[in-house]
Amino acid sequence: MALDSIFQFFIPKDKKFFTLFDEQAANLVLIAKALNELVNTTNPERQKELEKEIERMEHVLDQCAHKIFLELGKTFITPFDREDIHRLTSSIDEIADYIHGASKRIGMYKIEKSTPTMIKMAELILQSTEELQKAINELRNLKNLRNITDACVRLNSIENHADDLYDAAVADLFDNEKDAIKLIKMKEVYSALETATDMAEDAANVLESIIVKTS
Amino acid sequence: MALDSIFQFFIPKDKKFFTLFDEQAANLVLIAKALNELVNTTNPERQKELEKEIERMEHVLDQCAHKIFLELGKTFITPFDREDIHRLTSSIDEIADYIHGASKRIGMYKIEKSTPTMIKMAELILQSTEELQKAINELRNLKNLRNITDACVRLNSIENHADDLYDAAVADLFDNEKDAIKLIKMKEVYSALETATDMAEDAANVLESIIVKTS
Amino acid sequence: MALDSIFQFFIPKDKKFFTLFDEQAANLVLIAKALNELVNTTNPERQKELEKEIERMEHVLDQCAHKIFLELGKTFITPFDREDIHRLTSSIDEIADYIHGASKRIGMYKIEKSTPTMIKMAELILQSTEELQKAINELRNLKNLRNITDACVRLNSIENHADDLYDAAVADLFDNEKDAIKLIKMKEVYSALETATDMAEDAANVLESIIVKTS
Repeated sequence: MALDSIFQFFIPKDKKFFTLFDEQAANLVLIAKALNELVNTTNPERQKELEKEIERMEHVLDQCAHKIFLELGKTFITPFDREDIHRLTSSIDEIADYIHGASKRIGMYKIEKSTPTMIKMAELILQSTEELQKAINELRNLKNLRNITDACVRLNSIENHADDLYDAAVADLFDNEKDAIKLIKMKEVYSALETATDMAEDAANVLESIIVKTS
Repeated sequence: MALDSIFQFFIPKDKKFFTLFDEQAANLVLIAKALNELVNTTNPERQKELEKEIERMEHVLDQCAHKIFLELGKTFITPFDREDIHRLTSSIDEIADYIHGASKRIGMYKIEKSTPTMIKMAELILQSTEELQKAINELRNLKNLRNITDACVRLNSIENHADDLYDAAVADLFDNEKDAIKLIKMKEVYSALETATDMAEDAANVLESIIVKTS
Repeated sequence: MALDSIFQFFIPKDKKFFTLFDEQAANLVLIAKALNELVNTTNPERQKELEKEIERMEHVLDQCAHKIFLELGKTFITPFDREDIHRLTSSIDEIADYIHGASKRIGMYKIEKSTPTMIKMAELILQSTEELQKAINELRNLKNLRNITDACVRLNSIENHADDLYDAAVADLFDNEKDAIKLIKMKEVYSALETATDMAEDAANVLESIIVKTS
C-alpha cells in the first residue's frame, strides 16, 4: 500500500469534522435567533414556549459538541490540531450555554419586558453567531483565509460593543435601581448575555490560531 | 535491548498514575461525606469542626492533584493522553474546591440551619463522588468499560437533577425572600453546591473521552 | 545539512518566546503598579486618569498574549511544551483582566475611597506580579531553577494571604453592611482583586510544571 493510499484511508473521517462543525454552527445561529425572539416578545405564553425551545436547542448543541469530542477520540489524523478542535467546539458550546442561561434567568426572575439593553445585546449575540458560522464554513477549504480573519475582526468588535453596553447598563443599575433584588436580577441577565459574546470572542481566537498554523 | 523491555521500563511509572488517581478519588469521597455531615448537623461546634476538617481535606486534595501534575511532568509514556490526565485531575480538584467553597460560605454567612435543598444537593454531590470513584477504579484494567460508561450516564443524570434543584431554589428565593442580603447568601451557597456537580460532569466527560480512545 | 544546523534554524524563533514572555511580565508589573496608585489616590481626577490608563494597559497586555499565540502557531519547535506556553500566557493575561475588572468596578460603582482591604490586596497583587516577573526572566537560561521554585512558593503564600483577607472582608460585609447594594459593590471589587491573585497562582503552577519537565 502506497503512502498515498494510507492517507486516503483517513480522509473520510477527516471530512466528518467539517460536517460536524457546520452542524454545530448552524444550530448556534438557531438558538441565537430564538433568544432574539424571546427578548422581543411581550406575550407571556410565547415567552414560555421560547424558553422551552431554547432549552431543547441547548441539548441539541450539547449533542453536537459530544459528537465532535467522540470523533476526536476515534480519529488519528485530524484536519487541525486536536487542542484547537477541542477549544473551538467547547467555546461554541459555551455560547449556547450562556444563551440558555440568559433565557433561564429571564424566566426564573419573571422579567416580562426586556430592556433596550437586553434587546441590543441579544442582537449582538446573533451577529456573533452569524460571523462564526461564516468563518466555520470557510474552514473546509481554507481558500479564503481573508473571510475568516475578517469575521474574527468583526467578532472582536462585537464583543467590545457588548462590553460597553454591559458596563453602561450596570452603572445605570447601581445609580438608579434602589431595589437590590431587582438589581441582582437584571445584572445577572446582562452578565449572561455579555458572557455569550465573550465566548464568541474566544471562538474567534481559536479560529485565528488555526489560520496561523495553516498559512 | 528488545523493544518489549524498553516498554517494561516504563511500566512502573505508568502504574503510579492509577495509584494516584485512586488516592485522589478516595479523598474526594471523604470530603463529600464531611460536607454531608456539615449540612445535617445543627450543633454549632460540630459545624465549626467540620468546616475546619473540610478545609484540611481540601489541602490534601490539592496535594493529590499536585502529585499527579508532577508525575505527568516526569513521565514520558502515560497510560492515557496527557491532556486527559490533566483535565481529569483538574476537574476532580475543582469538585473539592467547590465543596470547600460551599462549606466556607456556610460558615462565613452564619447559616446555622441547612435548607432541604442544601441537604439534597450535598447528597447528590456525595453520589457524584462515589460514581467517580467507581469509574476511576476501573481505569486500571479497563476490562469493564461498561461500568465506566454506566457511571458517566449516572453522573450526567445527577448533574441534571442538581440543576433542577438549583433553579427551583433560586426561583423560590426571588419569589419569597424579601431580604436581599439573605437572598445573596443562600444563592451563593446553592451556586457552590450546584457547581460541584457540574465539575463532576466535566470529569465524566473526560472519562468518556478516555474510553473512546482505548476502545 | 547536518541535523545540528536544522536545529540552529529554529533557535532564532525559539528565543523570540523569551523576549515576548519578558515583555508580557514587565507590562503586568506596570498594570499592577497603576492599580496600586489607583487604590491609594483620593483625587477623583487622578482616579479617572488611572482607570483609563489601566484600560489602555490591559489592551497592551492583550496584544502581548496575542503575539505569543501567533508565535506559537508559527513555530514548530518551542522552548517548552506548547500547552504550557499557552497556559502561562493565558493566566498572565487573566491576571491583567482581573486587575482591569477591579479598576472598572471601582469606577463604575463610584467607590471614592478605598478600604484598607482593597489597598492591602492591591499590594499583594503587585507582589505577585513581581514574583512572576522574576521567575519568567529566569526561564531563558534555567540555570537557577531554585529562583523559580522559590518564586512559586511565594506566589502560593501570597494567594493564601489574599484568600484570608477576602474571607474576612466578606464576612465583615455580611455582618455589618446593611445596605445590600453597597454590599454587592464591595464584594465584587474584593472578588476581582482576589481572583487576580488566584490567576497568579495558576501561572505559578504552570511554571512549576515547566521546571519539572526540564529538570
